[in-house]
Amino acid sequence: MTFNTFGRLFRYTTWGESHGEAIGCVVDGVPPRIPLSEADIQPWLDRRRPGQSKFTTQRQESDTVRILSGVFGGMTTGTPVSLLIENEDQRSKDYGEIKDSFRPGHADYTYWKKYGIRDYRGGGRSSARETAMRVAAGAIARKIIESAGMRVRGALVEMGGVVIDRARWDWEETERNPFWCPDAEIAAAWEEMLGAIRKEGSSTGAVIEVIAEGVPAGLGAPVYGKLSADLAAALMGINAVKGVEIGDGFAAARLRGEQNADEMEMRGEAVHFRANHAGGILGGISSGQPVVARFAVKPTSSILTPVDTIDRAGNDTTLRTKGRHDPCVGIRAVPVGEAMMACVLADHLLLARAYGD
Amino acid sequence: MTFNTFGRLFRYTTWGESHGEAIGCVVDGVPPRIPLSEADIQPWLDRRRPGQSKFTTQRQESDTVRILSGVFGGMTTGTPVSLLIENEDQRSKDYGEIKDSFRPGHADYTYWKKYGIRDYRGGGRSSARETAMRVAAGAIARKIIESAGMRVRGALVEMGGVVIDRARWDWEETERNPFWCPDAEIAAAWEEMLGAIRKEGSSTGAVIEVIAEGVPAGLGAPVYGKLSADLAAALMGINAVKGVEIGDGFAAARLRGEQNADEMEMRGEAVHFRANHAGGILGGISSGQPVVARFAVKPTSSILTPVDTIDRAGNDTTLRTKGRHDPCVGIRAVPVGEAMMACVLADHLLLARAYGD
Amino acid sequence: MTFNTFGRLFRYTTWGESHGEAIGCVVDGVPPRIPLSEADIQPWLDRRRPGQSKFTTQRQESDTVRILSGVFGGMTTGTPVSLLIENEDQRSKDYGEIKDSFRPGHADYTYWKKYGIRDYRGGGRSSARETAMRVAAGAIARKIIESAGMRVRGALVEMGGVVIDRARWDWEETERNPFWCPDAEIAAAWEEMLGAIRKEGSSTGAVIEVIAEGVPAGLGAPVYGKLSADLAAALMGINAVKGVEIGDGFAAARLRGEQNADEMEMRGEAVHFRANHAGGILGGISSGQPVVARFAVKPTSSILTPVDTIDRAGNDTTLRTKGRHDPCVGIRAVPVGEAMMACVLADHLLLARAYGD
Amino acid sequence: MTFNTFGRLFRYTTWGESHGEAIGCVVDGVPPRIPLSEADIQPWLDRRRPGQSKFTTQRQESDTVRILSGVFGGMTTGTPVSLLIENEDQRSKDYGEIKDSFRPGHADYTYWKKYGIRDYRGGGRSSARETAMRVAAGAIARKIIESAGMRVRGALVEMGGVVIDRARWDWEETERNPFWCPDAEIAAAWEEMLGAIRKEGSSTGAVIEVIAEGVPAGLGAPVYGKLSADLAAALMGINAVKGVEIGDGFAAARLRGEQNADEMEMRGEAVHFRANHAGGILGGISSGQPVVARFAVKPTSSILTPVDTIDRAGNDTTLRTKGRHDPCVGIRAVPVGEAMMACVLADHLLLARAYGD
Repeated sequence: MTFNTFGRLFRYTTWGESHGEAIGCVVDGVPPRIPLSEADIQPWLDRRRPGQSKFTTQRQESDTVRILSGVFGGMTTGTPVSLLIENEDQRSKDYGEIKDSFRPGHADYTYWKKYGIRDYRGGGRSSARETAMRVAAGAIARKIIESAGMRVRGALVEMGGVVIDRARWDWEETERNPFWCPDAEIAAAWEEMLGAIRKEGSSTGAVIEVIAEGVPAGLGAPVYGKLSADLAAALMGINAVKGVEIGDGFAAARLRGEQNADEMEMRGEAVHFRANHAGGILGGISSGQPVVARFAVKPTSSILTPVDTIDRAGNDTTLRTKGRHDPCVGIRAVPVGEAMMACVLADHLLLARAYGD
Repeated sequence: MTFNTFGRLFRYTTWGESHGEAIGCVVDGVPPRIPLSEADIQPWLDRRRPGQSKFTTQRQESDTVRILSGVFGGMTTGTPVSLLIENEDQRSKDYGEIKDSFRPGHADYTYWKKYGIRDYRGGGRSSARETAMRVAAGAIARKIIESAGMRVRGALVEMGGVVIDRARWDWEETERNPFWCPDAEIAAAWEEMLGAIRKEGSSTGAVIEVIAEGVPAGLGAPVYGKLSADLAAALMGINAVKGVEIGDGFAAARLRGEQNADEMEMRGEAVHFRANHAGGILGGISSGQPVVARFAVKPTSSILTPVDTIDRAGNDTTLRTKGRHDPCVGIRAVPVGEAMMACVLADHLLLARAYGD
Repeated sequence: MTFNTFGRLFRYTTWGESHGEAIGCVVDGVPPRIPLSEADIQPWLDRRRPGQSKFTTQRQESDTVRILSGVFGGMTTGTPVSLLIENEDQRSKDYGEIKDSFRPGHADYTYWKKYGIRDYRGGGRSSARETAMRVAAGAIARKIIESAGMRVRGALVEMGGVVIDRARWDWEETERNPFWCPDAEIAAAWEEMLGAIRKEGSSTGAVIEVIAEGVPAGLGAPVYGKLSADLAAALMGINAVKGVEIGDGFAAARLRGEQNADEMEMRGEAVHFRANHAGGILGGISSGQPVVARFAVKPTSSILTPVDTIDRAGNDTTLRTKGRHDPCVGIRAVPVGEAMMACVLADHLLLARAYGD
Repeated sequence: MTFNTFGRLFRYTTWGESHGEAIGCVVDGVPPRIPLSEADIQPWLDRRRPGQSKFTTQRQESDTVRILSGVFGGMTTGTPVSLLIENEDQRSKDYGEIKDSFRPGHADYTYWKKYGIRDYRGGGRSSARETAMRVAAGAIARKIIESAGMRVRGALVEMGGVVIDRARWDWEETERNPFWCPDAEIAAAWEEMLGAIRKEGSSTGAVIEVIAEGVPAGLGAPVYGKLSADLAAALMGINAVKGVEIGDGFAAARLRGEQNADEMEMRGEAVHFRANHAGGILGGISSGQPVVARFAVKPTSSILTPVDTIDRAGNDTTLRTKGRHDPCVGIRAVPVGEAMMACVLADHLLLARAYGD
């Protein structure tokens, strides 16, 4: 899990910049003899693709993925699967003031301090455009985990402080609104709220929940490869994420021991947990319950409101980010979070197979 | 960052079980010519050591560390530093019902499902006793980062839902109460609260904040070795942790873009940020501001209240955990969290040196 | 150093099959601010390119490399450099008997046993075509090590049992004959010999020597990252290689201790070694002398002479490999060996910088 | 495979210096439920132990190994196995001239250049004493591979230029002479030769062959985790090794394609190879034939004959190494080579299981 590579046995390496020629990834560690074609990957990319509603950036990208290697006769060969998406809408624009000034909240300043290079073209490597390849890799991971009975789904559960009502949770509803919201009433409220925020040129944050069902007990490698720690890294590493929780998360810190206990009982031959405060992970290992993770996405930093900042020459200046941006980047983070969960589970499934766990 | 090894260039591997003969770790990647002796490590271990107040387990362990290799003439040699602590109080007790039943909230069940082995002796490898070696490794990491001007400190900022008042934050106060609490008033309130919880045989959760000052801009390796993601894994991997935040964390999800902006300005030659919502990390790279992380610890699962569970034979049963336990494991997690922050920073400092960043 | 990725801090991942759409690699860990364009890479690829003399395969590939990411304004940015070469001459031929039979000496049988997939198109992933990307990655590695004063060169020192005379060693001669032979007389002899072998439809083996000059003392990471061990893996991993030596190699096993001693003396301020039996590496660490490695390449397995083999259905059969092949694959292994040496040195240079060695 | 850690899924980390308090290793990635005790490891250590014949160093070490973790109730638990050997004979001697002068052929000079530290106590970390832990880890690896039907054995096949006659190869003979020589006649000749060399205070080199039988087809992970490349690194990384061969090795470079072909045929249901020039590895993947590797060990550098060298202050000087040394370190390298082969195979067996290969 280093630099531009994610995972141990299911490993992928991404490359490419927001406004470069193309973006891509190499997925290494795909078991052989899995049926795979672009049609397995494209639908997931389409869910993350920009320009699908007025609530996401208007950048026009078809995000058409090509498989360049690792598949023969419709089956994976066990060799690296190379995926490529050409950038289409790298608008040859005047980067203007962004070229020399640092956008607060963005990685402009830190990349410049680290690398001594200012790739001002739409954020360069730090752009969320990289997450398209996470979704692509995640689509392959899904093929692996689904064959083992696992299923990963995500939903937006909070936006701008407005939280869903879990009693109304309906997975099918997530496909019917532009927010992946499982609560139809709240989706309507968000539509109004986010419309107003967008018109003001502002932005807001969100919380995403990702749930994996069908995860067998025994995945996770203590003590420095815990399923919880790997999920934390995977989700915290998504652009704009500032917090990660497993199960009850921070709320657990306010509970008493007896409130937090997931008591167990037998139901016939099967082990039954009476609750899932732990989010399906105990001691870093899956318990057989659904694995539940949440992550917080900060409000988009690019806003129309002018903000004070500095430029490369060390002068004070003011910046107002025009251009195409998401008023709530949390929305498009839903398919990305799902993908990361799928990749982590695929990695741990292969690890468990290695040791006969 | 795999299995029982943490880190890339500053790497340590831990071993040992709660009630085995000893615990230890091997720290690889320590630069040569650093003055090092047991006296540099022991004080940090003493902070985590059990049995120091009535609010932590009464297990008696001196936690005396020995350096077995990697140091010659009082200096590190660049070769692996092997550290060892002998277990002293592996009470030869009757494990009784714990031997065959699974304690809810513990890793008993998941280890058994994963490994097919039930090491019932005090949690075996899943015990928080392993964290002593994190603290020991962290002490060596501190030597590395302190020579680069960094300093890591931690504090308990919430217990049982009772939150400190940041206006009263006093680092010196953390050394004066048994909770590492920076707020004297709240420390007193916690003392009363936790005393009552302890007497009831119950437990509660807590939130710890760890702050690193003096971190130079440019640490962190995008996109899968982000400083934020590595911290998330490092902290989530501590026993009983269920949530991690950087900077404003989940609160950021409720902010507008303009509220969350850390505006910048020049103050003479120096770059100044007007706020630190980002917690010192942008795009996964340190900004030069203090790095701020928080993590949530669930209530201790071992409580006197009987809980329903199952045994290895697949029968329903009830369990009441007697024995020596912390009413709030979050307290002893403070030095552990500090250690993990130190290890992550040491690792990234070496990485940055490699590339001349 | 796992699967399709080579190196620790200077890391590259290759992908692609001999007769797929393209081949490529992603080079991660390139320090920022290094001037880089295709013109830095193409000349090295041209040296390995097929079809340059009658002694190498007649497959027509221009091997034109494109940089798809990681470079901005003519400089590396510190982010992954993605390289791509489109395959041009994937001759849509009748694979005939090769499709179902296993060519002895090739990886056909072992890939089939491992993966359960038979990618019969020119060897698929196991083809030496992959080595083009090693040369490309090596070209970037050269930029790194050359800036530190290192230089890597290779030569063919033995072919079909005919060994060069080291007294006649002339580096410039390596550029004048089609064998990278440093001995003009032997080059002429080889030309005759290999011409005859080629006409017979046979093949022969060779030994390549790679020398790195200007290597500073102190590169190499004991005990499982020794410079010698990394070179051994890097060179043994090249297609058709069956042996690797450092310095005197196997000949050292026949020496007495006093014959093998590289005695040292001061020459002014400089340390001087009177010999270099060790090949510039002691205890896995470079000594400051030239690093000398040799590797043995077996004769090309694809020959016109019919050989007995079996097919996928488990029947005995006989195979005669027609098509485009090198009578001595060792020739084109010279630039590949150089590239691997360059990559290993770049990796260790970055490692040494990390620790301030 | 970095620094002081070997392997991917079967991983061990060694620590300790020749004359430190103890040496040890942590073996991570041992599958659970394998019966294991010290009695499984000690016999292999006894084979490498010094002081067993007049042809090995007279240092007195019982090399008694202790298992400190990872085993419960006589079975591995899936958690790290920590092994420790206390050094007993760190003779408190006057290191005299060795303290400040660099012994040619040793790592003294390179460690000093790399680390800026001179651990003169018997070679410190660079001593072959570290190989005891390779043998210990190898003993655990044997448990894994033997349960899959594999068997690893080694023999000395050449000493001081005197080569065995393979027609007389007898594995049982290797247990009857102090050289692990499979040829009784040559063993007698070596005894005389090495006795004379020892009396002269000189030393000589050797070649070791290690053979693994029962290796299933399909182990090895192309293209940068080839079984051949991993073996090359594993064997080249042993102290004093200067060359590694697989199968015919360097001799293959002198063959024609038709001579080198390992033709195949069916024998009933089984695939039969008519020869094994390839040493059981094709394209980096095991073929099902015995895996055959050889490595060359240089003559012991510590000899009684005075050699010219320099000291730390940069003066010319002359050194004559007294003390306890092996006249042929190749002898004790036999069990070490076996151990490394076992570790590589265990690692690849687990890898193959991960992917269902």
